[in-house]
Amino acid sequence: MTVRLRDRFASLDDLRAACLDLPPGDPKAAAAAAARQSQLTKPLGSLGRLEDVVVWLAQWQGRSIPRLDRVDILVFAGNHGVTKQGVSAYPAEVTAQMVANFSAGGAAINQLARAATASLHVVPLALEQPTADFTQAPALTEDAFLAAVGTGYKTVSSTADLVCLGEMGIGNTTAAAAIAAALFGGGGTRWAGRGTGLDEEGLIRKRAAIDLGLARHAALLGDPLSSAAALGGRELAAILGAALAARHQRIPVLLDGFVCVAAVAPLANLRADALDHALAAHVSAETAHRMLLSELRLAPLLDLGMRLGEGSGAAVVVPVLRAALACHAGMATFTEAGVTDKPG
Amino acid sequence: MTVRLRDRFASLDDLRAACLDLPPGDPKAAAAAAARQSQLTKPLGSLGRLEDVVVWLAQWQGRSIPRLDRVDILVFAGNHGVTKQGVSAYPAEVTAQMVANFSAGGAAINQLARAATASLHVVPLALEQPTADFTQAPALTEDAFLAAVGTGYKTVSSTADLVCLGEMGIGNTTAAAAIAAALFGGGGTRWAGRGTGLDEEGLIRKRAAIDLGLARHAALLGDPLSSAAALGGRELAAILGAALAARHQRIPVLLDGFVCVAAVAPLANLRADALDHALAAHVSAETAHRMLLSELRLAPLLDLGMRLGEGSGAAVVVPVLRAALACHAGMATFTEAGVTDKPG
Repeated sequence: MTVRLRDRFASLDDLRAACLDLPPGDPKAAAAAAARQSQLTKPLGSLGRLEDVVVWLAQWQGRSIPRLDRVDILVFAGNHGVTKQGVSAYPAEVTAQMVANFSAGGAAINQLARAATASLHVVPLALEQPTADFTQAPALTEDAFLAAVGTGYKTVSSTADLVCLGEMGIGNTTAAAAIAAALFGGGGTRWAGRGTGLDEEGLIRKRAAIDLGLARHAALLGDPLSSAAALGGRELAAILGAALAARHQRIPVLLDGFVCVAAVAPLANLRADALDHALAAHVSAETAHRMLLSELRLAPLLDLGMRLGEGSGAAVVVPVLRAALACHAGMATFTEAGVTDKPG
Repeated sequence: MTVRLRDRFASLDDLRAACLDLPPGDPKAAAAAAARQSQLTKPLGSLGRLEDVVVWLAQWQGRSIPRLDRVDILVFAGNHGVTKQGVSAYPAEVTAQMVANFSAGGAAINQLARAATASLHVVPLALEQPTADFTQAPALTEDAFLAAVGTGYKTVSSTADLVCLGEMGIGNTTAAAAIAAALFGGGGTRWAGRGTGLDEEGLIRKRAAIDLGLARHAALLGDPLSSAAALGGRELAAILGAALAARHQRIPVLLDGFVCVAAVAPLANLRADALDHALAAHVSAETAHRMLLSELRLAPLLDLGMRLGEGSGAAVVVPVLRAALACHAGMATFTEAGVTDKPG
């Protein structure tokens, strides 16, 4: 199966077609990796999910011994008109300030990327031009949505062995909650959380904003991509594009937190197996994240109470994958080591 | 408070005294680390347990910016007479075979140690001389128990920034389950699990062996150290000694799986805060591990379905701690980065 790579999408229909045209993984590489796991000097299955993730990497890289030579962390940033509704603990200018902090190397993700021996790529998307306040109008026009998806799509390099997706955007847990509600039902009460540290009144405003957005755009909510345009944001659209590009190139993906997973959720609504190349790196302290992962049947690898975004949870998982690969590639087999592999 | 370092213990009473004579951590270093965390460019608490572990490391290293320059993984190995009761899926000779595999570099822990940039130290304890079958006699005499504790004690280097404890010993989940039962109540049915992959009949034998051991040594079970000698094994005793030595030197410790935690549990029974310098690296697939952690109020960092031992779960956590430290040491403060830290 050959998938045509496109970095521009002419219309929602064009994008929808690309979202339905997905290559499968490589079952032979996965089977070979699993067979190797069964010969290594350990009781079968005793490395738990460290065994599973290696087989998953093999499946999507098409290599029985996968590699993580080039790991790209892609962090997309955007601004949100819905912040006018008082839905965030921080002012909107923090988005640009944090992008500057990423450039200067001072943010958590800079340190985590270095610790993971991964390359960090920060992509600000028209920060000076926030989305429309979705309680009043669609957050993004179709053109603006498609442009952001295209930007994300072409950010993925064909030479990456693994792509970690992350985001920064004051107000974007409100957008994420609205998308989750549009796709899986329930309203602001179900999906709104405290984000970066919202107080009780802020939380009430956030719930109301989500419900207003859902009501205003009710006619669009049957379509996942239209919902993402009307309620989401540029950085979420770019994440969707990047996840799609990775799938078209069979590159495995680590998803970060609630916003990241909400951004790619429309792909799973369009096609049930669309996120098979993606692993949920962690479950965050934002309660809605756990619910959304459950809706998507994604089992997070870590549960460390993180709630920062920036791709931080995904970055922490990279060394865990490296540890898993080190076992897979470096361990002796029972035969090589002269260890008895049969019950006594 | 100065603790006298001893690598030999003359009697159980002497060891008990050493177990009660424990230095506290450094609250000033912990407070300074927490204060620094609150100034870094992230919402307070948003790195979740990555923040907690840094404060914990600071507390025990006595440094507001902790370091992990030297990480030692200590793996103790022993053989168990109780294997005669048919309690393991593998024959007893696998212990020595796996120690040879450790020396040759072919085991999981070799790869994980390298991936974690940690030094691996494997300490076999009289493998040719299994403990007595505890269903028939005390597993270890008092002298043999104290000797193994002393071996573990002196294996800890004062120059280590962190010590990971692990073990290898066919049959040792039976010993661990018996110790857990002795300390926390319940019998074989509560504490026996499938270990390396025991079948149903094996599990029945394992439960029975534990109950026989508890019945035979009932008179000793009021004393944690006597219980550890009667039901445990040399590698468990060495782990107890190593954890004690680390505490006396205020070196933080990562605990691995069920056997490792059962080995140090007597310390917590002697003094409630005895494991404050220790972190449960993970919770394994062995159900008893979760119960034991709960009894000890230890919150595991990872839950990856691992059940290998060898210190493998602890080793996987080391890069996670390094990631946490990288954030702590490398991130900009709000002031340095010119990022707004106040609610808008």
